[in-house]
Amino acid sequence: MRKNDAPVYYGDYLKLDQLLSSQLPKSDEHGAHAHDEMLFIIVHQVYELWFKQILHEMQSVVEVFGKKYVDEKDVGVAVLRLTRVTEIQKLLVDQLRVMETMTPLDFLEFRDFLFPASGFQSVQFRLIENIMGMKPEQRLLYNKQAYYQNVTPDHQEIIKSSEKQASLFQVMERWLERTPFLDFGGFNFWEHYRSAVNKMLKSDRDIITGNPLTSKEEKKKQLLELAANEESFAAVIDKTKHNDVVSKGKRQLSHKALQAALLIQLYRDEPILHLPFRLLTALMDVDEMFTMWRYRHAQMVHRMIGTKIGTGGSTGYNYLKATVEKYRVFGDLFNLSTFLIPRSTLPDLPAEVRKSLGFAYAQQR
Amino acid sequence: MRKNDAPVYYGDYLKLDQLLSSQLPKSDEHGAHAHDEMLFIIVHQVYELWFKQILHEMQSVVEVFGKKYVDEKDVGVAVLRLTRVTEIQKLLVDQLRVMETMTPLDFLEFRDFLFPASGFQSVQFRLIENIMGMKPEQRLLYNKQAYYQNVTPDHQEIIKSSEKQASLFQVMERWLERTPFLDFGGFNFWEHYRSAVNKMLKSDRDIITGNPLTSKEEKKKQLLELAANEESFAAVIDKTKHNDVVSKGKRQLSHKALQAALLIQLYRDEPILHLPFRLLTALMDVDEMFTMWRYRHAQMVHRMIGTKIGTGGSTGYNYLKATVEKYRVFGDLFNLSTFLIPRSTLPDLPAEVRKSLGFAYAQQR
Amino acid sequence: MRKNDAPVYYGDYLKLDQLLSSQLPKSDEHGAHAHDEMLFIIVHQVYELWFKQILHEMQSVVEVFGKKYVDEKDVGVAVLRLTRVTEIQKLLVDQLRVMETMTPLDFLEFRDFLFPASGFQSVQFRLIENIMGMKPEQRLLYNKQAYYQNVTPDHQEIIKSSEKQASLFQVMERWLERTPFLDFGGFNFWEHYRSAVNKMLKSDRDIITGNPLTSKEEKKKQLLELAANEESFAAVIDKTKHNDVVSKGKRQLSHKALQAALLIQLYRDEPILHLPFRLLTALMDVDEMFTMWRYRHAQMVHRMIGTKIGTGGSTGYNYLKATVEKYRVFGDLFNLSTFLIPRSTLPDLPAEVRKSLGFAYAQQR
Amino acid sequence: MRKNDAPVYYGDYLKLDQLLSSQLPKSDEHGAHAHDEMLFIIVHQVYELWFKQILHEMQSVVEVFGKKYVDEKDVGVAVLRLTRVTEIQKLLVDQLRVMETMTPLDFLEFRDFLFPASGFQSVQFRLIENIMGMKPEQRLLYNKQAYYQNVTPDHQEIIKSSEKQASLFQVMERWLERTPFLDFGGFNFWEHYRSAVNKMLKSDRDIITGNPLTSKEEKKKQLLELAANEESFAAVIDKTKHNDVVSKGKRQLSHKALQAALLIQLYRDEPILHLPFRLLTALMDVDEMFTMWRYRHAQMVHRMIGTKIGTGGSTGYNYLKATVEKYRVFGDLFNLSTFLIPRSTLPDLPAEVRKSLGFAYAQQR
Repeated sequence: MRKNDAPVYYGDYLKLDQLLSSQLPKSDEHGAHAHDEMLFIIVHQVYELWFKQILHEMQSVVEVFGKKYVDEKDVGVAVLRLTRVTEIQKLLVDQLRVMETMTPLDFLEFRDFLFPASGFQSVQFRLIENIMGMKPEQRLLYNKQAYYQNVTPDHQEIIKSSEKQASLFQVMERWLERTPFLDFGGFNFWEHYRSAVNKMLKSDRDIITGNPLTSKEEKKKQLLELAANEESFAAVIDKTKHNDVVSKGKRQLSHKALQAALLIQLYRDEPILHLPFRLLTALMDVDEMFTMWRYRHAQMVHRMIGTKIGTGGSTGYNYLKATVEKYRVFGDLFNLSTFLIPRSTLPDLPAEVRKSLGFAYAQQR
Repeated sequence: MRKNDAPVYYGDYLKLDQLLSSQLPKSDEHGAHAHDEMLFIIVHQVYELWFKQILHEMQSVVEVFGKKYVDEKDVGVAVLRLTRVTEIQKLLVDQLRVMETMTPLDFLEFRDFLFPASGFQSVQFRLIENIMGMKPEQRLLYNKQAYYQNVTPDHQEIIKSSEKQASLFQVMERWLERTPFLDFGGFNFWEHYRSAVNKMLKSDRDIITGNPLTSKEEKKKQLLELAANEESFAAVIDKTKHNDVVSKGKRQLSHKALQAALLIQLYRDEPILHLPFRLLTALMDVDEMFTMWRYRHAQMVHRMIGTKIGTGGSTGYNYLKATVEKYRVFGDLFNLSTFLIPRSTLPDLPAEVRKSLGFAYAQQR
Repeated sequence: MRKNDAPVYYGDYLKLDQLLSSQLPKSDEHGAHAHDEMLFIIVHQVYELWFKQILHEMQSVVEVFGKKYVDEKDVGVAVLRLTRVTEIQKLLVDQLRVMETMTPLDFLEFRDFLFPASGFQSVQFRLIENIMGMKPEQRLLYNKQAYYQNVTPDHQEIIKSSEKQASLFQVMERWLERTPFLDFGGFNFWEHYRSAVNKMLKSDRDIITGNPLTSKEEKKKQLLELAANEESFAAVIDKTKHNDVVSKGKRQLSHKALQAALLIQLYRDEPILHLPFRLLTALMDVDEMFTMWRYRHAQMVHRMIGTKIGTGGSTGYNYLKATVEKYRVFGDLFNLSTFLIPRSTLPDLPAEVRKSLGFAYAQQR
Repeated sequence: MRKNDAPVYYGDYLKLDQLLSSQLPKSDEHGAHAHDEMLFIIVHQVYELWFKQILHEMQSVVEVFGKKYVDEKDVGVAVLRLTRVTEIQKLLVDQLRVMETMTPLDFLEFRDFLFPASGFQSVQFRLIENIMGMKPEQRLLYNKQAYYQNVTPDHQEIIKSSEKQASLFQVMERWLERTPFLDFGGFNFWEHYRSAVNKMLKSDRDIITGNPLTSKEEKKKQLLELAANEESFAAVIDKTKHNDVVSKGKRQLSHKALQAALLIQLYRDEPILHLPFRLLTALMDVDEMFTMWRYRHAQMVHRMIGTKIGTGGSTGYNYLKATVEKYRVFGDLFNLSTFLIPRSTLPDLPAEVRKSLGFAYAQQR
């Protein structure tokens, strides 16, 4: 209950007059009413409202993690907000089902009136991609042009300047790099991991070479495979090899950030690493849901307009399909699974270290 | 490709300037920024956009079925549009998950600033209820007042006048009443149904009375039950008994419409009844999804604000819960299942009748 | 890679021979093949497999929380497993959509062959209800009989003995009661809460009585409402009043457990309370999803068989509908929202207390 | 109610003893209990149960459409059954979320015990692919071997023989080829379509060449694009060109079947084409959902095991990803959208033709 405030009215608060008068079908303007154009407009408007909300959440997370010191509480808040983004993304995907209730033939009734407007002109979606951390060099050309060429000069400015602002990828990478536990209280996590991996690989080699039942040819194949696995682990453990992989564009995270992410995965049961673990999971969820959205969106376009050849000789569908995997931002986190090893092969943390990673309260008992 | 038209720009077409400047959090106005208020606003705005779309679809269906002669094509179009409504309703329900990422404590940060605005003030939602066919006498009082008392006089006018307009329920009832097949080509559907039901009930009675294994007491119980079933069938077959049930408010559809709906269910495999069958299913789907929305909405409110006692002594949660089942419009169609009998107990349609219900083309072969 | 083990074959591992030969339609046995009976069997078998998995998870959580000392890690594990249960529950609900592709008329083709088998005979579902913590006295009679009367004597034994085993509700209540933070390091949480509530209620009273614009009658109404709110808060703060509410069956949790749950809600941002908060949320999610399942299941039954009068004079649909809200186990947690107050009205924790609730590591900096 | 039958018991009917004793974790066998292996087993068993159901539906559809004369009723039944398959497929996809509650580290606890069992050994899934109509030559080699090499000889026989049986693709193609309406009652659909397309393309050319505002270079680009569109339409209209595309493996359907499918799309509002239209849509839905399943499954594998190099030098993830689009069966139906033209450019059907396509009943009025 509040004193003296003017009563708030639902419709005013939500600006419904403005909101509900924003649907002006072009087919009506052309005197050729197409029933389904309303759906087309409203679906896109809902998308833009959700995009605004996603930006709202992402900006707040970038801001918090851009600070020098990130409080534990902040990690919890970031997890909640990114989880919210994921819930919104599920709607973005499911919403395609509503769009698909419009058949290709119904779309043809007003499609020509919209020329050359296109979803590629959504400024907010570009801002989302950039605040996620998509790199300009990662993008595909569309009709041999940069991705922002088809919007107004004002909008181009907004998009281009967003490329230079702090992204989720950047702030998370820096936060990971600051993790103090890689070498902590005399326990060198990395040394132990390397040793456990070597032991595992050596045991694999012994099994292969010692098996009396495998043919010579089969043995050779297995050893080749093992060598590839060794190489793969080496590219994580060895900083120089890691940097080599990065320079080829096959990995994005710095060596230190990658190490920290792996540590968090492997020791996620320790209370102090629980929220960081959930944060990495939330980042993967957001990334995966955008990938899913791109995939489902491409399918929907295929179903709606087939493979019509568009301006510039490329089809919308093929372009969209090509972006699905290419536009992933946190792919390194997914690939981390490659480098997990069974908990049982890792040493327990020394009691003192474990204590430090627990709650102060527990120590006082 | 179109000649001479000005090129259309995505942002202009969707009125994004207007749309994306419609979020003005009250907490900011009060200098007490609450991060989650943006979500609260946008979720409600998305609801209102979908409500507009739902009204757009429903109005078009009412218009088509309000005509004297409803073409077969129109039935198909109505099915598609109601199916679209159902797809939108799924989003309305799923969207609650996004809302639930806001915790009760976060809501408290700005809840007081919104007083006394409330979702009960959504005019569009009232219009949807009324175009569905909700009867004013079916509604619960809220704080001892009519459901439209808490909106502005202008809005009250809009809502009240919508009570008098043609509803989905009305046009569907009239369309059902016009079904020509209840007595058609010498085949009296209703006579055959009555006879099949009687045969089934008689056989049930014989089994009960003739079973040497059931105790006297058990037999008595079974016969009471059978009598109740007989009564229940009688209230469908007998017009007077039917009208009696209607006058008690336990059934809404006229006797003729109910008969037609039952015919459609039982002979839905005949080509000419296929689309009518899908239409009845679509109406039930829409009705069920609103019921589901009411249910989930009430749950969400419970989780968000508990059972706080509100203005007038009733709690929002309890009020919402009470509307869930009460506000169903096409309940009669659900109850029809009670009166279905196995296909095998119904007579095949005479060849001449079946022909008439098939495609002209097939006859020409 | 493992030495010396026999290779595992997919079909053997999953016992597919056994699994895929477990579908024996009764309609075929009666020489009256009904295509849809296969669906009916498989849908129910899938339900039973998921029930087994749910029991597996719940039993493990009860076991861990039944121990004298619950480790922080265990809380995290419990959250993950209950979250898994919720994901399974979503499938249980969505699976009804598959069932609904069978129309009422198709069901009639084989329904009589199944007499008197019924989903009420699912032993596993009863075990789930009991391990959740449903109280025998909470249950509705079905046909004037206890809920386990319609299964075999062996199964009755299994169900009845499960009533006596430790339930999620019990172990959680005890764990809450042991929370050490209600009066900790000289900070009496409960005292502060009471004082904040009183201040809030007093301010509300001042606003009401001091408002020159409200009519006498309106003022009276508002004061009555306020008194009801005061009473409601008193029944949480005052142990005697709380116990009174419990004895009327309107609340289940002990006073101490309820206090702890409220503390966790209000100070959930403190690292040490983060996982406990997530645990309470997970319990509510599981409870809500069962409620949802009961609701959707009742709807499906309504749609499938209408309101046919069954053995004992009650209809399946009405019985199922009556259980929806009545069978909730953690309702107290939902009602807690009633007693939340804005964070800003609560005192900050003293620095020393906050330190104790943080990580040991942080203190060492 | 039925006389003399033995009462049916829920647990017996569903063979629960057999079903619920089919979970034997390998980790227990090795004395190294891994809690999550139960989930792993049950998830896969549920998949296999659903696969059985999907085969049940698909076989029944193939059987019906394999008949010489397909009744209108049969089309309706096929639509319902394929729709059911799609509802099941949604569960298959959503079920991955349950699987994903198992973290990569938890999987490592028992993964080695399962070697070399693999989902690639699911016989039922191979049967589903084959009954859909996947061509052997369409398949990718896995580790340089045919897709059935890793199952037992018995299972290989079953899979290989399924390659030779009638598939959904085949029976649907033949059914489409028999469509009588391509040249019907003196109305040559195909002639009219060709003429409407030519008119449209000519108008496009006129607009391009006549536009005084486009630069010479831009004009050239637009004309190239137009030529590509002309070529694309020609490959549908002209049988020889069509066969050329087929021989290159870029299209599967025969020319006649493709024509019929296009006719159905364009005149789907005619009552007699309504169900055929829904059938084509259902086929696309089933196809798309399998594609979606492949996609989501590949993502899950990526997240679970990363890009570990497996036997034969290829990674499971990359193999799975490669099958996503490649294993589509009804791609031609999706591509049809490319060849739709606005309804307004097509001639109305002559009254006599339209009558033939309507219901006999309507003619008699």
